[in-house]
Amino acid sequence: MTRQELFKQIIQKQSFLCIGLDTDIEKIPPHLLSFADPVFEFNKNIIEATRDFCVAYKINTAFYEASGVKGWQSMQKTLDYIPENIFTIADAKRGDIGNTSSMYARAFFQKEQSGFSFDAITVAPYMGEDSITPFLQHKNKWVILLALTSNKGSEDFQHRATDGEELYESVIRKSQQWGDADNMMYVIGATHPELFSHIRSIAPDHFLLVPGVGAQGGDLQKVAEAGMNDQCGLLVNVSRNIIYAEKSDEFSIAARMEAMKYQKTMQDLLQSRFPS
Amino acid sequence: MTRQELFKQIIQKQSFLCIGLDTDIEKIPPHLLSFADPVFEFNKNIIEATRDFCVAYKINTAFYEASGVKGWQSMQKTLDYIPENIFTIADAKRGDIGNTSSMYARAFFQKEQSGFSFDAITVAPYMGEDSITPFLQHKNKWVILLALTSNKGSEDFQHRATDGEELYESVIRKSQQWGDADNMMYVIGATHPELFSHIRSIAPDHFLLVPGVGAQGGDLQKVAEAGMNDQCGLLVNVSRNIIYAEKSDEFSIAARMEAMKYQKTMQDLLQSRFPS
Repeated sequence: MTRQELFKQIIQKQSFLCIGLDTDIEKIPPHLLSFADPVFEFNKNIIEATRDFCVAYKINTAFYEASGVKGWQSMQKTLDYIPENIFTIADAKRGDIGNTSSMYARAFFQKEQSGFSFDAITVAPYMGEDSITPFLQHKNKWVILLALTSNKGSEDFQHRATDGEELYESVIRKSQQWGDADNMMYVIGATHPELFSHIRSIAPDHFLLVPGVGAQGGDLQKVAEAGMNDQCGLLVNVSRNIIYAEKSDEFSIAARMEAMKYQKTMQDLLQSRFPS
Repeated sequence: MTRQELFKQIIQKQSFLCIGLDTDIEKIPPHLLSFADPVFEFNKNIIEATRDFCVAYKINTAFYEASGVKGWQSMQKTLDYIPENIFTIADAKRGDIGNTSSMYARAFFQKEQSGFSFDAITVAPYMGEDSITPFLQHKNKWVILLALTSNKGSEDFQHRATDGEELYESVIRKSQQWGDADNMMYVIGATHPELFSHIRSIAPDHFLLVPGVGAQGGDLQKVAEAGMNDQCGLLVNVSRNIIYAEKSDEFSIAARMEAMKYQKTMQDLLQSRFPS
């Protein structure tokens, strides 16, 4: 999916919501456990219930790998079930030397080889240029590079300053030599709302994938005010708060209600920036 | 496997060789393609041929994921085929917020959940403490933390200095608050042989996993001289130079010869440090 197409979806749906399918078999409603593939059954219901209110789904690979081969099967079925016009993210945090990153690109982008064709993959920047560029060689595919993450551990290394520039700033600046706003996004945690204006000064055009709203406590309003650009430029991810809104038989209705709430807030935010 | 047991294996086998199973279906001998699982068939032959000369196998997850679900099946069969007394590494470069890293630990350490029980996993440090500690809660399991990698891109961020301390040094120093030499190793590329003495001054007891010998050009002799500690403290990885030593029917014999060559060199290096 291109940047233009993504923006179009955002305007059409009046939403920049990304829903994280962090599906943990130990947390899904117990009645689903009788299905052959409970994780897929859960996801299918969640997707049906929420697809009208989000523009992206983010599949957190860890939750699928935790069930090994079976988990990868659930992941494949889930990806296949997501409607064409919804942006798909493999939240995989991969990245390795060049020839290995090429294999990861094959794994997540080349359906004919691996069965998977996500629109985007999250990549960790620690290993530098050649760990990132192999992903950028795939047309209309995206690298979403970790810059400033939402967790407590983001304080350990991401703020280390060299000549006045912090590590996450260096990642954003340097990576713009490798890719551009049409094939690269950045992960910026909602738990750092005060930094969004600053980040926009160094990456004005890039989409930002923003985790940390919801369970992690980030503030959607503040993020949107400081982070939105002239193509919206934001995908705000919510996982647990939506998919585990309710553990009963009514889980998908509860998820739908919760997704709708986020979408309504986003609609207001979009309307004030892009009045229809 | 404990550090003591690993050292015992090294002395018994007179080897600190780790063989990287970076098995690319496009590079294996063509006659194997008629098997139901060519990748596993290749690995089985390589393991049979080389198991006497190495103390560890490193499975590069990217090469398996590149074939999707089928690749994960090959990976599982391969892991199951590796003899008990050989140290196994998931070269997976994972790392995410705490609850997600817990799922990765389940994926790679907890056989009853995922089918996989590696001894160790490689982890990227960018996301800091809570991305690493969930792996450390598993008894006799190891985190192998990326510190100074072997690739060109290691120059992009890993040498950024803050108050005189480079990022990779900060990773080594700081992570010693989270784990110790009994559950944590570091990746230090053989392509930086001049830095091994320095690294030993900040991590005297930790095992180092050293990629970059062989195809990437690192120097085994220099690495051993500066990097060996009183429990050897080194696992030197060779992948392509061994497993693709030859593309004919004789590929496993060629791999065996190549592995033996590395083992002989290592034997000399071990003998001069630990005379029998």
